[in-house]
Amino acid sequence: MSAVDLIELWRGGMLESVHRGHAVICDPSGVVEAWGDPGAVIFPRSSCKMIQALPLLESGAAAAAGLRPEQLALSCASHNGAAIHVERVDSWLKNRGLSERDLRCGSHMPGDRIEAARLTCAGASPCQLHNNCSGKHAGFLTLNQHLGGNSEYVELDHPVQLACKAAFEEVTGETSPGFGIDGCSAPNHAGTITGLARAMAAFAAPGGGARGEAMASLVQAMCAFPELVAGEGRACTALMRAMQGRVAVKTGAEAVFVAIIPEKKLGVALKILDGGTRASEAAITALLVHLGVLDAGHPVVETYLTGDQKNWRGIVTGQLRRAKGFPA
Amino acid sequence: MSAVDLIELWRGGMLESVHRGHAVICDPSGVVEAWGDPGAVIFPRSSCKMIQALPLLESGAAAAAGLRPEQLALSCASHNGAAIHVERVDSWLKNRGLSERDLRCGSHMPGDRIEAARLTCAGASPCQLHNNCSGKHAGFLTLNQHLGGNSEYVELDHPVQLACKAAFEEVTGETSPGFGIDGCSAPNHAGTITGLARAMAAFAAPGGGARGEAMASLVQAMCAFPELVAGEGRACTALMRAMQGRVAVKTGAEAVFVAIIPEKKLGVALKILDGGTRASEAAITALLVHLGVLDAGHPVVETYLTGDQKNWRGIVTGQLRRAKGFPA
Repeated sequence: MSAVDLIELWRGGMLESVHRGHAVICDPSGVVEAWGDPGAVIFPRSSCKMIQALPLLESGAAAAAGLRPEQLALSCASHNGAAIHVERVDSWLKNRGLSERDLRCGSHMPGDRIEAARLTCAGASPCQLHNNCSGKHAGFLTLNQHLGGNSEYVELDHPVQLACKAAFEEVTGETSPGFGIDGCSAPNHAGTITGLARAMAAFAAPGGGARGEAMASLVQAMCAFPELVAGEGRACTALMRAMQGRVAVKTGAEAVFVAIIPEKKLGVALKILDGGTRASEAAITALLVHLGVLDAGHPVVETYLTGDQKNWRGIVTGQLRRAKGFPA
Repeated sequence: MSAVDLIELWRGGMLESVHRGHAVICDPSGVVEAWGDPGAVIFPRSSCKMIQALPLLESGAAAAAGLRPEQLALSCASHNGAAIHVERVDSWLKNRGLSERDLRCGSHMPGDRIEAARLTCAGASPCQLHNNCSGKHAGFLTLNQHLGGNSEYVELDHPVQLACKAAFEEVTGETSPGFGIDGCSAPNHAGTITGLARAMAAFAAPGGGARGEAMASLVQAMCAFPELVAGEGRACTALMRAMQGRVAVKTGAEAVFVAIIPEKKLGVALKILDGGTRASEAAITALLVHLGVLDAGHPVVETYLTGDQKNWRGIVTGQLRRAKGFPA
């Protein structure tokens, strides 16, 4: 099996570009629907941040540090580096007796236009708090205080990363075939697209015990604070707002997207093979509509899937479309 | 035949993402080499700006207006909207008794970081001069003065666009199967990837007459002013500088790239099916090295193809690679 066409770009009534990929929907007992190769190995990238946050909760570190749902949402976030994100991560670190200098995620210009303009016009550089992964790293640091590891918490054999790897393999039900270094310098463990969907189904229907409680807390936090998981103008935030806290979704670099649907006990994972984000956003939108948890008439569906593509003068130039057979 | 894998992204020694597409190399007698489907119909987008500039020269409009090579290069450009571009297009329009208000390309924030920061910090909006296509549109307006058409020069049946369509069909040797509206509001006529490569081969080995002279003048202008065709940090500019005026290259939206190689009488056209620019830049770099016109050891090859991908802390995360069989 190989990847299949999922999303197309049409212009002037003609096909201009095509995105293929893999998508899998799982319930707690296994694969419910699949497109492309359900056994394809992918890097989940930031789509698995809620898995990487499990040790933070299961270890008792989050409770010991008194983390609130806002901070749990940030630990799962790929945020815009807006003031609402930067200030909260900064406070979190200070409350733990830590600072921006303890982060190991690196710095990049924030996606948030207001904060980027503020930095540019002040002649200032972004700091590590602006890194879209700074919340995940604040979670890593909080876990590390609990575990007593050394300061280099992104090293592959560091107790924090060993705990994350163990959680990843347990919830995907697979032995990871390898890892890569992510944009934020943390290891990112590969797995099958089905393994990732299986993990999301586990988050959708958590069992008892520390793991089940951790999963439920993280999903609730993401759903309660969609603006902290990404930010204004971002698909994760817009889609979660549209579904009013009923579904958690999360993007990952190179066009990965996952969804956790508690009311249906379903998990979704998809990867666009070329890494094109417009297609992963369109594809997850299509699947959420397909599964009946996102109203096809909601404006967010127009934004990410069905709306016209327009040019700089507002003239319609084309449309994104679902490829034949996707999702139905 | 269908698209084939051309460029891959590897992370941690594992394949993460794949870009497929079509590529064709033509000489004046036809196809020399091809990958994917040489008959695939594509939108050339901005890669065909030198074709759209032919009527400007062939009509005598360019000579009557006293256009210099700098302006011819701008007429073929998808520029960064830097000061060097904006000022020159502004002067050009003023010299013709025209202004920014006569443009029909729309406005967008310039790609040039310095100019974008200047606008942001001044609280100013970009104008149509900043549009990456403003040079092409200044050419359209100059042609329109010569032809005496009305002000709406981007309409499909306007004399300017009819002349552009005729030139496109003549140099591609095909009847265009349809058109779309481009980002700059001008019609963009579809054609086969082979038709586009055939046209580039004609530019590489121009015959006599008004057309041959126009082709030679445009190629010389692009090669003489690579910074006007795109701008600092852009692939077109960097690649043309690396080849020291021996080859003209041009990108188009949705991952099209063309090359004109006079010394070998070759034309190249490629399209990455998913529209991913990183892959079209890598693929044209690979083909230029393959054809012996770009030194494999030149730093620009590292920038666009062979260099390590690094994250925000400068840690190596992966590599782009040529897919097996591409180009050899």
